[in-house]
Amino acid sequence: MTGSSTAVAHSNIALIKYWGKVDSRLAIPATSSVSLTLDAYRTETTVEWGAEQDSVVLDGAVLSGVPADRVSRFLDLVRDLAGRSDHATVVSRNTVPTAAGLASSASGFAALAAAATSAAGLTLAPRDLSILARKGSGSASRSVFGGLAVWYAGTDDLSSYAEPLVDPGLDLAMVVAVVNAGTKEISSRDAMRLTAETSPYYDAWVSASRSDFSSMLDAIGAGDFTRVGELAESNAMRMHASMLGSTPPVTYWEPDSVRCLRLVRELRSAGAECYATMDAGPNVKILCRRPDLATIRTAVEELGVAGVTTALPGPGVRIDRATA
Amino acid sequence: MTGSSTAVAHSNIALIKYWGKVDSRLAIPATSSVSLTLDAYRTETTVEWGAEQDSVVLDGAVLSGVPADRVSRFLDLVRDLAGRSDHATVVSRNTVPTAAGLASSASGFAALAAAATSAAGLTLAPRDLSILARKGSGSASRSVFGGLAVWYAGTDDLSSYAEPLVDPGLDLAMVVAVVNAGTKEISSRDAMRLTAETSPYYDAWVSASRSDFSSMLDAIGAGDFTRVGELAESNAMRMHASMLGSTPPVTYWEPDSVRCLRLVRELRSAGAECYATMDAGPNVKILCRRPDLATIRTAVEELGVAGVTTALPGPGVRIDRATA
Repeated sequence: MTGSSTAVAHSNIALIKYWGKVDSRLAIPATSSVSLTLDAYRTETTVEWGAEQDSVVLDGAVLSGVPADRVSRFLDLVRDLAGRSDHATVVSRNTVPTAAGLASSASGFAALAAAATSAAGLTLAPRDLSILARKGSGSASRSVFGGLAVWYAGTDDLSSYAEPLVDPGLDLAMVVAVVNAGTKEISSRDAMRLTAETSPYYDAWVSASRSDFSSMLDAIGAGDFTRVGELAESNAMRMHASMLGSTPPVTYWEPDSVRCLRLVRELRSAGAECYATMDAGPNVKILCRRPDLATIRTAVEELGVAGVTTALPGPGVRIDRATA
Repeated sequence: MTGSSTAVAHSNIALIKYWGKVDSRLAIPATSSVSLTLDAYRTETTVEWGAEQDSVVLDGAVLSGVPADRVSRFLDLVRDLAGRSDHATVVSRNTVPTAAGLASSASGFAALAAAATSAAGLTLAPRDLSILARKGSGSASRSVFGGLAVWYAGTDDLSSYAEPLVDPGLDLAMVVAVVNAGTKEISSRDAMRLTAETSPYYDAWVSASRSDFSSMLDAIGAGDFTRVGELAESNAMRMHASMLGSTPPVTYWEPDSVRCLRLVRELRSAGAECYATMDAGPNVKILCRRPDLATIRTAVEELGVAGVTTALPGPGVRIDRATA
């Protein structure tokens, strides 16, 4: 049984952030989160079972060490589910700049979860696929679904899953200002742990983010873009504030991040309604409505940052090819 | 009785910050703070009693509106103390860029308190002068003293005062990177109030800052520069994090602020031990030891920020001239 499957998944940007876990091994988060899957960043992954050992090629390079082990540990979960003991050849290609705060692990583990299970002959319900993907990388649970998605924190393995949210015609779009696509000084996993262990603001972050989450579901349900944007921006700033409160302080902000944040305020004053969100990296993602996309893109380009990408809501994970 | 006095006071930079009040009218702070009075920024203020109404000339311009009222309310306190009902002519000159996060109100109200009481024929003990100055601007209580000073939060008017700390030979110096000396978008008073009212991190800020304060007194007592610097930097970042957590988020950071913060990290790695602190403004104040001052100054100059000033510990407030 040497099935092969290719899956494609897209990255997602959280509008209510995931920052802090209650169970590190199972990736049970401290708080529920809301995200928008984007059409702009994707991972395509092919998994073929029947090998004598696991191997991973990412963007043409053979992975080794910790990243390779992380994939193997994930494949162990699929082996357990499928009741098999052979190994897999994984070939993956990203259009996400890896480790630059553009959530390459979200699309990566969503695609891997889909390809590895499909190639193993398993058919998982979307919820079960999100539970599996979560154990590779928390935010991957959300990339199983397209557009707006919610990831319920839950309290154990089975209750911590993502599902799609109905978009009531918000007509969302995003401009990603790529400030620095280099490798980060501290990984998001380490920064998240440092925050939980040393920031006096961590407990209040958890409480505030739970409240932001409820408000966000209400705002989305009401189709209230202004409220969605305000909540996304203040939740993101609060996440960055929680790490700035750590010992030692952590910030992912670059000078160009600040220029982008100021531009967002200026654009908003000038009538192009938009809001900033940032993940564990220096890039600034600007949430807007589709009619304003071109105006905002041009304004960011004029800043002269490293790169600018526009994105619309993207699809959930899908199997492209499967051979038995 | 038309006495005239001229007083000179210097600005101070808090190493453990004052951010939040329990009594707005009396300026009783939520937390105790520690500061370094600098020789670089000073206010010289002449007060002459016997006028028919209060008037204030600041750097050659007649003050009106809220700033003039604030001085008059302060002069009311002096009138009460001195049992007089006449008014005062106040002429003040700053070498502090006003409202740019360089604490011009600290040197300003320390000088005003000293000049106004002296001209009124009062002789206040230093502690009482710090209590009076506090009611003009909280941080002014610390500028009554030179070098390292502590401002005990206290619980009422008489227990909230500053006093000097013995410097055990820390040999401190400061490089001030002036990032933007323009007027701030939000005053420190308003940002402080917004933080207290809307930031979910405010309570934890108060608790953490109380703990930082105790640790700072220990570190100063032990003459441990590394610990003093680490505490100053993390306390300042935590203050900025508390406002970034507000609704809406507040940040005083400019792109050049981030460049300065990164430079401090680089200098530290390269062996020029220094630490950053920031107040309610974009400037970055770099705490170091005197032998490293020139190296650090040169490095900041090479960044090309708007201005660079070096400072050593400065004197407490003093009366320069007094005529009866």
